[in-house]
Amino acid sequence: MQKAQEYVRRIQSNKHMSRFFSKKYKNLVPYTPGEQPAEKKYIKLNTNESPFPPSNKAVEFACRSAYELQLYPDPECRKLTDKLSGILGVSRDEILVTNGSDEILNFAFMAFCDKNHPAAFADITYGFYKVFAEINNIPYFEIPLNEEFKLTFNDYCGINKNIFIANPNAPTGLMISKDEIEKIIKSNPDNIVVVDEAYVDFGAESCIPLIHKYDNLLVTQTFSKSRSMAGARLGFGVGCKEIIKDLNTIKYSTNPYNINRMTMAAGIGALEDEEYTRGNCAEIIKNRIYTENKLKEIGFFTLDSSTNFIFAKHPKISGEHIYIKLKEKGILVRHFEQRRIREYNRITIGTSEQMKSLISALKEILEEV
Amino acid sequence: MQKAQEYVRRIQSNKHMSRFFSKKYKNLVPYTPGEQPAEKKYIKLNTNESPFPPSNKAVEFACRSAYELQLYPDPECRKLTDKLSGILGVSRDEILVTNGSDEILNFAFMAFCDKNHPAAFADITYGFYKVFAEINNIPYFEIPLNEEFKLTFNDYCGINKNIFIANPNAPTGLMISKDEIEKIIKSNPDNIVVVDEAYVDFGAESCIPLIHKYDNLLVTQTFSKSRSMAGARLGFGVGCKEIIKDLNTIKYSTNPYNINRMTMAAGIGALEDEEYTRGNCAEIIKNRIYTENKLKEIGFFTLDSSTNFIFAKHPKISGEHIYIKLKEKGILVRHFEQRRIREYNRITIGTSEQMKSLISALKEILEEV
Repeated sequence: MQKAQEYVRRIQSNKHMSRFFSKKYKNLVPYTPGEQPAEKKYIKLNTNESPFPPSNKAVEFACRSAYELQLYPDPECRKLTDKLSGILGVSRDEILVTNGSDEILNFAFMAFCDKNHPAAFADITYGFYKVFAEINNIPYFEIPLNEEFKLTFNDYCGINKNIFIANPNAPTGLMISKDEIEKIIKSNPDNIVVVDEAYVDFGAESCIPLIHKYDNLLVTQTFSKSRSMAGARLGFGVGCKEIIKDLNTIKYSTNPYNINRMTMAAGIGALEDEEYTRGNCAEIIKNRIYTENKLKEIGFFTLDSSTNFIFAKHPKISGEHIYIKLKEKGILVRHFEQRRIREYNRITIGTSEQMKSLISALKEILEEV
Repeated sequence: MQKAQEYVRRIQSNKHMSRFFSKKYKNLVPYTPGEQPAEKKYIKLNTNESPFPPSNKAVEFACRSAYELQLYPDPECRKLTDKLSGILGVSRDEILVTNGSDEILNFAFMAFCDKNHPAAFADITYGFYKVFAEINNIPYFEIPLNEEFKLTFNDYCGINKNIFIANPNAPTGLMISKDEIEKIIKSNPDNIVVVDEAYVDFGAESCIPLIHKYDNLLVTQTFSKSRSMAGARLGFGVGCKEIIKDLNTIKYSTNPYNINRMTMAAGIGALEDEEYTRGNCAEIIKNRIYTENKLKEIGFFTLDSSTNFIFAKHPKISGEHIYIKLKEKGILVRHFEQRRIREYNRITIGTSEQMKSLISALKEILEEV
C-alpha cells in the first residue's frame, strides 16, 4: 500500500538517521517517487511516463556515444544546448540543461531563495517544491488553489516572494494562460518566477518567449514526458543570461559533469526527430479525450486535463479503494494522501489498448461495489 | 591559457551574477574542470581519463537499455547495487550509487557538516572539497601537507572535525596506508571521516573493509578511472547502514532518479567484466613506471604515484611553460595555479604510444630552452 509506504518513509526519515546527520534537516521528509516495480507485471499508469519508446535517433545516438564512455562528457553540453537553442528560439547562454528537471528546480531554490527570499507555490502541486525548500532551509508559503483546484493568478500578484508554478499543474492537470502568468511575472519584478512546464507539450502555451521581456523569469522543461526519455534524465531551464549564469555557478559548484555522454547524445537524437515527438503528443491527446469520455460515462468526475494524465474521482468509491483494486488487477495509478485530493487518482495516459484495459478494470470495480 | 580561464571564471562568478542571486554565495568560486576541447586534436592527458574504451559488456548493456528510455530508472538502483555489494563484500544497504563521485561527496558535506561541524582536508588535494564547503556554507580548515607533499596522519588525529581524505591524493598521486587512516578514524569517533578512493585501483589499499568496524567512515569510489566510464557519471559511497540512510535522505530530497538507465546498465556490464578492468589497471601501472623512469632520465622530479597520473616538475623550466609548450605540441596536461604546486604538472597515464609522444615532446621542449 502506498499509504503504508509513505508512513514507513516518514518514520525512517525521522527515526533511523545516524548520530552524525546534521540537525538542520530535522523536519525534512524526502520526496516519495511513484512506485517503480522491479517486475513488469503492471500496466504502469502511475508516473506519467510515455507509453511510446524513445525516438530511433535517440537510441542510435546514445549507443554510438557509449563507445567513448572513457572520456568525460562536455561539461558545457555545447552541441545539445545549441540544438535546443535553435528549436526554442533562444540563444545558447539562455539555456542550462540538467540531470532531469528536478535538478534545475533544486538549483533555482538554491540560487534565488534564502531566509530573506522565501518561496511560494500552490498547496496542491508538484510535491517536490516543498522538499526543495526544506532541504535548502528556505521558508515557504503554500497558496491554496480554489475549490475547483484552479490557480487564481491574482493570489500571486505583487506578493514579493519567489514563485514556483507548474503549468499545466500536477497532479490536477489544469493549466492557466500565458497572459495570466505574465501578469504574475510583471507584478513581482524583484522576485524570480519559475514556470515548470514539464507537461506543456500536451496542451498549454509555453512562457519561453517571455524570457526576452522579463529578467525574472525561469522556464523549466523536461525530456521525460513528451520525448519518451524519463529513463535518460534530461531537463533544462530557459531564462535571461544572468539567471542562467547564476544557475551555472550552482552547477559548477555541485556537479559540473551533471549530464553523461549517452543522455546528451540521446537528447540530440530526440531533437532531430521532433516530428516523432509531435506525433506521440497528438496520440496521447487523442487517448486522453477518449479516456475522459469513457470515465465520465461510468460516473467519474475529471478535471480538465492539459497533460498526459487525468485526475479523476468517483462519487461512490474512495480514491484509495480504486487505487488498491486497480493494483490488484495489474494496473498502477498514483494516489496521494493529501487531504484535499485523497478522493482522486492521477492516471497516466497510455496507449489506446492500455486505456481500454483501464476502463474495463474500472467497470469491474464499480460492479463489485 | 588556463591561467586566463581561471581568471575569467573568477571575474564572471563575482561580477556578472543576476540581481536575484542569493547573497549567501558571495564568496563562492565554482570548481574549474579540466579543459574538454570540442575538437579531437589533442592527446588528452589532463583529466585522468582511461586511455582504454569501456568494457564491451558496459557498451552492450547500455545500448540495450536505451530502448526503454521512456521508463524512469529504478530510483533504488537495486540490480547495480546488488552486483556491487557482491564484489565489495558489503551489503546492499551499505552502498549508495550516485551521479559521479562528486555527487556522493557533495551529499556527505550536506548531510554531516554544518556551522557546528566544520570540515577539514589537506591544503593540496581535490579542489572540489573547498567548493562543496563553500556552497553549503560550511566552515573548513585546510591542513598543510608536509614539505614533501605527504599527509601526516597525526595532523588529523583527534581534531573533532569531519575529515575528507583523498587516498591516493590528487594531484600529488601519493597514498597513505590503511593503518594510518584507521588511526584517524579511531581518534575522531564523533566525526565522519570520508576517504575518497577515486584512484585506489592503481595502487593503494581500500578502506572499505573498515566500514564494518567503524560507524563514522564513508568510503567513496568512482567508475570514471579504472573502469573507463568517466563519460557515464557513476560513483558510489560505502559506509554503515545509518550513514547510507542519511545520504539517501539527501538523495531523495534533491534528485531521486539521479542515475539514468543507461549508466546503470553500463555499470552492471562493467562489473561483469572485472578481468578487463584489472588488465587495464596493470597496463596503466606498467606505463606509469615507464613514464616515471623516462621523466627522471630527462631531469624531471616526480612524486611517487599510486594513481593513473604523475605529478612532475623540472628544475629548469616553469610548470606553466611546460603546460603551454605541450599544448602547442598537441598534448594537454593539467597545470594548477596554486602557489605550492605551480611548478608541477599533473600528467595522466595513457597508452604506451601516448607516453612515448609525451616524452618526445618534453625532450624537444627541453632542447628549445
